[in-house]
Amino acid sequence: MATSRKQYAVARPVYSEERFTDDHEKVFRKHKTMLDHVKECLTCNPKRAKNAMLSLLPIIGWMKIYRLKEWLPGDVVSGISTGLVAIMQGLAFAMLAELPASYGLYTAFFPVLIYFFLGTSRHISVGAFPVLSLMVGSVVIRLVPDAEPPANITDFEGLSRDQQRVLVASSMTFLMGVFQLGMGVLQVGFVVMYLSDTLVSGFTTAAAIHILVSQLKFVLGLVVPGISGPLSIIYTLKKIFVQISSTNICDLVMSILIMLAVFIVKELNEIYKAQLPVPIPIEAISTIIACGVSYGFNFTTRFNVTVVGKMVQGYEAPIAPSMQILQESAVEAFPTAIVGFAIAFSVAKVYAIKHDYTIDGNQELIAFGFSNIFGASFKSFAASTALSRTAVQESSGGKTQIAGLISALMAMIVTLALGFLLEPLPTSVLGALVIINLKGMLMQFREVPYLWRKDKPDCVVWVSTCLSACLLGLDLGLAVGLGVELLTVVFRTQFPRCAVLANIPGTDLYRDSKDYLHIFETSGVKIFRIPSPIFFANVEFFKDKLMAAVGFNPLRVLRKRNKALKKIKKLCQGDHLDFTARELGDVYHQSTDDSYKDMEALDQPTHLNAPPFRVDWNDKFPDGISVPRVDIHSLILDFSAVSFLDIAAIKGLRRVFRDFMRIDVDVYIASCDAYILEKLHSCVFFDQEVLPSVFFLTLHDAMLHVLEKQKGNSCKDRVMKNTKL
Amino acid sequence: MATSRKQYAVARPVYSEERFTDDHEKVFRKHKTMLDHVKECLTCNPKRAKNAMLSLLPIIGWMKIYRLKEWLPGDVVSGISTGLVAIMQGLAFAMLAELPASYGLYTAFFPVLIYFFLGTSRHISVGAFPVLSLMVGSVVIRLVPDAEPPANITDFEGLSRDQQRVLVASSMTFLMGVFQLGMGVLQVGFVVMYLSDTLVSGFTTAAAIHILVSQLKFVLGLVVPGISGPLSIIYTLKKIFVQISSTNICDLVMSILIMLAVFIVKELNEIYKAQLPVPIPIEAISTIIACGVSYGFNFTTRFNVTVVGKMVQGYEAPIAPSMQILQESAVEAFPTAIVGFAIAFSVAKVYAIKHDYTIDGNQELIAFGFSNIFGASFKSFAASTALSRTAVQESSGGKTQIAGLISALMAMIVTLALGFLLEPLPTSVLGALVIINLKGMLMQFREVPYLWRKDKPDCVVWVSTCLSACLLGLDLGLAVGLGVELLTVVFRTQFPRCAVLANIPGTDLYRDSKDYLHIFETSGVKIFRIPSPIFFANVEFFKDKLMAAVGFNPLRVLRKRNKALKKIKKLCQGDHLDFTARELGDVYHQSTDDSYKDMEALDQPTHLNAPPFRVDWNDKFPDGISVPRVDIHSLILDFSAVSFLDIAAIKGLRRVFRDFMRIDVDVYIASCDAYILEKLHSCVFFDQEVLPSVFFLTLHDAMLHVLEKQKGNSCKDRVMKNTKL
Repeated sequence: MATSRKQYAVARPVYSEERFTDDHEKVFRKHKTMLDHVKECLTCNPKRAKNAMLSLLPIIGWMKIYRLKEWLPGDVVSGISTGLVAIMQGLAFAMLAELPASYGLYTAFFPVLIYFFLGTSRHISVGAFPVLSLMVGSVVIRLVPDAEPPANITDFEGLSRDQQRVLVASSMTFLMGVFQLGMGVLQVGFVVMYLSDTLVSGFTTAAAIHILVSQLKFVLGLVVPGISGPLSIIYTLKKIFVQISSTNICDLVMSILIMLAVFIVKELNEIYKAQLPVPIPIEAISTIIACGVSYGFNFTTRFNVTVVGKMVQGYEAPIAPSMQILQESAVEAFPTAIVGFAIAFSVAKVYAIKHDYTIDGNQELIAFGFSNIFGASFKSFAASTALSRTAVQESSGGKTQIAGLISALMAMIVTLALGFLLEPLPTSVLGALVIINLKGMLMQFREVPYLWRKDKPDCVVWVSTCLSACLLGLDLGLAVGLGVELLTVVFRTQFPRCAVLANIPGTDLYRDSKDYLHIFETSGVKIFRIPSPIFFANVEFFKDKLMAAVGFNPLRVLRKRNKALKKIKKLCQGDHLDFTARELGDVYHQSTDDSYKDMEALDQPTHLNAPPFRVDWNDKFPDGISVPRVDIHSLILDFSAVSFLDIAAIKGLRRVFRDFMRIDVDVYIASCDAYILEKLHSCVFFDQEVLPSVFFLTLHDAMLHVLEKQKGNSCKDRVMKNTKL
Repeated sequence: MATSRKQYAVARPVYSEERFTDDHEKVFRKHKTMLDHVKECLTCNPKRAKNAMLSLLPIIGWMKIYRLKEWLPGDVVSGISTGLVAIMQGLAFAMLAELPASYGLYTAFFPVLIYFFLGTSRHISVGAFPVLSLMVGSVVIRLVPDAEPPANITDFEGLSRDQQRVLVASSMTFLMGVFQLGMGVLQVGFVVMYLSDTLVSGFTTAAAIHILVSQLKFVLGLVVPGISGPLSIIYTLKKIFVQISSTNICDLVMSILIMLAVFIVKELNEIYKAQLPVPIPIEAISTIIACGVSYGFNFTTRFNVTVVGKMVQGYEAPIAPSMQILQESAVEAFPTAIVGFAIAFSVAKVYAIKHDYTIDGNQELIAFGFSNIFGASFKSFAASTALSRTAVQESSGGKTQIAGLISALMAMIVTLALGFLLEPLPTSVLGALVIINLKGMLMQFREVPYLWRKDKPDCVVWVSTCLSACLLGLDLGLAVGLGVELLTVVFRTQFPRCAVLANIPGTDLYRDSKDYLHIFETSGVKIFRIPSPIFFANVEFFKDKLMAAVGFNPLRVLRKRNKALKKIKKLCQGDHLDFTARELGDVYHQSTDDSYKDMEALDQPTHLNAPPFRVDWNDKFPDGISVPRVDIHSLILDFSAVSFLDIAAIKGLRRVFRDFMRIDVDVYIASCDAYILEKLHSCVFFDQEVLPSVFFLTLHDAMLHVLEKQKGNSCKDRVMKNTKL
């Protein structure tokens, strides 16, 4: 090698794990037990109490540093622009939840009040989120269908259909809030980690398709009853296409115009982001124009256009949730709670990183839990955040939840005083606004080819989540997607690419023997690399690969040897020297006649001291006795990538060790993680046959040990001649 | 070090992955694409055709080597003893499936005929299995309840209740067969790998509890309607206890006597296994005695004992499955198919290993698929194997499926001719036989403390599978158990014990710096070990741990530096030398006012060439400018245990790289798997900032490179002084 190149030189003893522990003093570290953690959790002192108080009321934290003069103007401007969007979205998303439009305004008001005090994010705009609204809507439509009589629920008695629907939505929202609060109190906010970006992307794309389909009827001005349950999307499309000829042209034209206008202005907003102080509130503008036009030309009577109609003036008395509905909607409320939190948390995280503050997942759960419970009592429905609304709030200068509070006040003003102005608004305009806002979510389809090229399992997760959420409904689809996602993790480690390693001459490095031209396999030693954790799903696969790599099944070899030994003993005792192959066959087959105990005897280690001579199993035997050749004396397993073992793996590994050792093949493990070693000790992996001295620090340590041992045996000198170590 | 000890010495160049590839010629290996695999699958030649034929009809394989004289006696003896057991179990398990007893005899006959030709296991006894019978029974009771009218299914018209039940059971069995056949054809037999031993143990224990509860009514002689659905076990127990005072004493006494007799004789069978040629068929003997006594003393009229009653004489015409029932039972038929196959396969594997032949999972699926479809047409119900019956067949000398065929013929004889003899048999006797045979399954409870001590996650899987299968029913319980099991795999890698490594002086070894007393951390270099694969669920956790290990957040440092730079530029231009801390705070907070573009600018790499001087970020700054100290210049990530990366991990890793490099911390990766390196290349991980030259073969290679580079920089000589490499 050229001297100009950096050199690696090391001289040290060959270390087995045992020797290494002897040589290098280890620090005794006490690991905390579960009890310690619980104790720590329950300890109370004034400081902890204060911190807990502060973390439960994050408003104290940011109110203390609030800079009135600098932040308030931004918050007010942002609150007003967000408020306009929130009002429009509230009306539109209420239609997704199959509720009268005014309840969308409630959702833009009540949950915000609580989040203001409890939320840790300073930038998200709390309120309706289309996916959640749709999930609420599917329960509403299941319990109070359009065409059929409502479900048999006692609390429905004496209520109009809309009131029944509001009761369903608010009861489900209440339950969702309880689930969120419960998860927050139990500190299990980390479960959202399982909702990977890929899964969320596939899921929200499916949700966008659902939303698109559900809004088609408004845009086309058709009367299509809502359908819930698996395949509902197909049935809905069918019903729409059946009556497509009755499309209301006025609705359609108006929708297309609105969509075009919103699309173009939003693009302009994006392009001139830097120049504009506040994005143009095109949705509010187009709504106002549409209201005016609809009112002025009397669309309702002239073109038979459906309008928002009578708004509920002011707020209504709080209601209690219905126990029966809670039971009926529990299966759907849980995924709704998870999705609502996951979306809000991921949006909040983006802005927290951008503005360099921390958000607390569990506190967010508590905040949303209380917000939803409070909101549900006042007839609002499931609240989370909408990406688009939050973007408006942040980009128009919002610094804290004061902006959110102002947007809530705007919703209140509309509810209390200006609601009547929105009554002539055609529903097709709201539908068009919803659809045009789906652009971002639908664009996620572009991820599919990207994922396919980069990582097939991730692509499978995306596609299966999207497909199942589309076809089976959002709740079932999410469960299926989660299942597939967990399976991919298992799958990635299930068929590991095991390899036989060999030495790169002149180095202490070992690489896949098939990968390099000049590579040296020491005869008599196999090095087998397991490139993944070992657990129930791959332990058999790993054993098969190992057998294939060494070229024989140790248990079968052991049995053949034991049978041959019986035979040899007979030969030694009597004078039956003319055994034929046919007779050996008989012995073999007769042995399967033996009782179970005899079978087990064949699996015992060969007792070489029984006959008065030593057997070299690779020698030639008399005719009629054949034993498979075993051409290795040592097997080294590279454990560097084995990050965990479960019980099935430990049992399987023990069997492998035992089987190989019984046919005199030494098994060593190299580069084993310290924690795995600890675990093997605690699981009584070791006994007289399997000793803890088989662990070596590196492959090269193990190899040097093997070579030394073989030299010590001095019967196989040729092994050493070939080694250039 | 003592010279007597083996020494490790190596001298070679320092290798980065790039240099290593240059020095050592790599073999180009073409990996098969999916297309290649498909092509290979579809290639046909005479040899492949013959092999396929042989693997589809395994009977040809073993018939050719059948030794008539030696094997036939064993097969006949075994067939007769197994037949006796099969008849008893058939009658008893039919009660679990809520069917008249004679259909249990059908199940002991029809499926065996097909398995004889198609099965690869030579030792399992095909027929009813209690868990499957119970799963069939739960569907039967759901569609044709005891007390209420049957479900609204047109095919039920004109059928008696028993006929309706037989139709339900056979339709569900048909569907189960179709699922098994489909899986066999699609070659997905590997899915049973997901049913780990722990899961199966928890599941069968729950099944045993269900069976126990379902048989109580027979043993006590009570009339309790069957209940299905979640919590049915609780409701059934409640109904039993409500009427416990009406217990039929005759039934109870007889059951207890039978259980005692069977228990004792089975223990004796076990103890004198070696001496007995065939285990004592105590079940058959006690049944015959019970029949005789019941007939002789006329139990039916005298003690009001329920008996088996009129048996169907002979076989009935085949029936077609009902489409409506197929739809209704699809959700249950799938787990039934999986469980049936999984049990049969695991039992078959035990005997295949013992007798040294191979079984083929996919062929087994095909065999059971056809067996069940064929059996279902002739009104038999779900077939798999029962552990106890297979043990009898093997231990009494059965060599091949000829024994199975003979046991089937015995069932036929009873059906055709001797059925009337069983008519006076009390159902309580059958119940007692079922219960006493649950001993083995219930004993699995002993695994719980063992698992808890050895491996907590495995214990959680056992307990949650058992509990959910008990409470939610077997099908839902299996799904929950599977979900929990998959979650444990994710969980084991989700919170990895990351560690900061340091050098063991005088060696090339790196260990957890907290674990050893004499360990050396090179100043300015952090070595961080990630002891698990990185994927969506732990990438954030890993990032947090890394930040904690290095002691700072690189993105935040970068922003502070860029802000400080702005400030310094201002200072250089103007004469504002008396900045106060308060004003810096303002700058910081004002910067959050900046539009998004300004925020992004702060995240850009610091352009040091902009001001006319070089900034040493760890120097003291003028008052009012504070930048966090960064006391490392290099970060080495130990990737030896990273067995896979998904898209989320690659994205996260890229961000980590970028953030550290932008604050002039070099990041290196050591011991990266070759396949992961390939994947990073294919996922466009590298660009001008992140270069592929950061990969080193070992930690020590990376460390030597770092030290060399720092020496080259010649500004930090002190780093070298401390190293003893």
